Amino acid sequence: MILCDIGNTSYHFLDSDKDYKEDVNIFNPSIIKEKVFYICVNPKIKIVLESLDNWIDLARKIDIKNYYETMGTDRIFACEAISDGVIVDAGSAITVDIVKNGIFDGGFIYPGKKAMKETYKNISSALNYEFNYLLDFDKLPKNSQDSISYGYLKLLYSEVNSYNIPIYLTGGDAKLFSKLFPKAEIDEMLIFKGMKKIIKNI
Amino acid sequence: MILCDIGNTSYHFLDSDKDYKEDVNIFNPSIIKEKVFYICVNPKIKIVLESLDNWIDLARKIDIKNYYETMGTDRIFACEAISDGVIVDAGSAITVDIVKNGIFDGGFIYPGKKAMKETYKNISSALNYEFNYLLDFDKLPKNSQDSISYGYLKLLYSEVNSYNIPIYLTGGDAKLFSKLFPKAEIDEMLIFKGMKKIIKNI
Repeated sequence: MILCDIGNTSYHFLDSDKDYKEDVNIFNPSIIKEKVFYICVNPKIKIVLESLDNWIDLARKIDIKNYYETMGTDRIFACEAISDGVIVDAGSAITVDIVKNGIFDGGFIYPGKKAMKETYKNISSALNYEFNYLLDFDKLPKNSQDSISYGYLKLLYSEVNSYNIPIYLTGGDAKLFSKLFPKAEIDEMLIFKGMKKIIKNI
Repeated sequence: MILCDIGNTSYHFLDSDKDYKEDVNIFNPSIIKEKVFYICVNPKIKIVLESLDNWIDLARKIDIKNYYETMGTDRIFACEAISDGVIVDAGSAITVDIVKNGIFDGGFIYPGKKAMKETYKNISSALNYEFNYLLDFDKLPKNSQDSISYGYLKLLYSEVNSYNIPIYLTGGDAKLFSKLFPKAEIDEMLIFKGMKKIIKNI
């Protein structure tokens, strides 16, 4: 069984225990003849895959009433993977989703680190710093780098910790954000776990 | 006595009780012959004003040891205006500064509403919404507009309220952000108040 999570830049495959990525602009999905269970947030690729009989869209197996219409499929499948906790998916955006007793309770969207660095830089060249992930949040900043780091990171840190439930970190920047949430479980396979769970119930 | 707070886009004058603005690209400061006490964060204008004897830079009267070297002069003078509280200056950036017993305790910088809207839009065209300032923060969002509004506004709301001290709102978006902080004192003259206090001590 092959699983595939397709984003805006890559196909992320899981074939047995092996995971690997292919560039969306180069990879030709029709070369795979085996059955592939996939989810896809990329509208162009979605159209291509609908014409391939061995590619099965798992999004159709979800009861959207438990989520909301415009919610990203990747967020939904990460939620399906856990029964209680907050999922922080740190990528180009940071999505924060809460699951209680196996039910999606809501979530919010915060800018990813690259987007937020650009934002500060565009406000003023005097704010063009890298974020300080090791900042002591117990003290209020008294320099420019820490002032933007606190604004970006401490506010997220406080919100996520305020739920007092287990934290699951996933996405390309999961390891980086584990500096903020040292007790969080890093699970880069969370979406695949959700996919496997849905396949079992088909 | 004329006071003037100069930003990146305008001269903001206070002449007795009358305040008015002049465009930095058009206004010629040498036409004023009276004494003007000013602060200025605009590096180009700063050079021009240094050659005018009747324009007196109040930033020189501040003991920078109480603040930090790269801190904006406007933030410093807003802090000088109060003895206890948190100042939320909502403009192109949102600066949040805490003053305790007349001493600056630190602060942080968060993106202004225009910059943050752009940030979400650039992450995905699916996130191109206006922020919902009337969002109920007690519920986690289940739609895209509320998901970004919560990410941007609720995190700021929680942080500012966590200090449990009086809130002072100033800057161009002060009225808009008073929807989040209904008990806050809106004071668009805060910087001028700080300037007057410093002049008294000269």
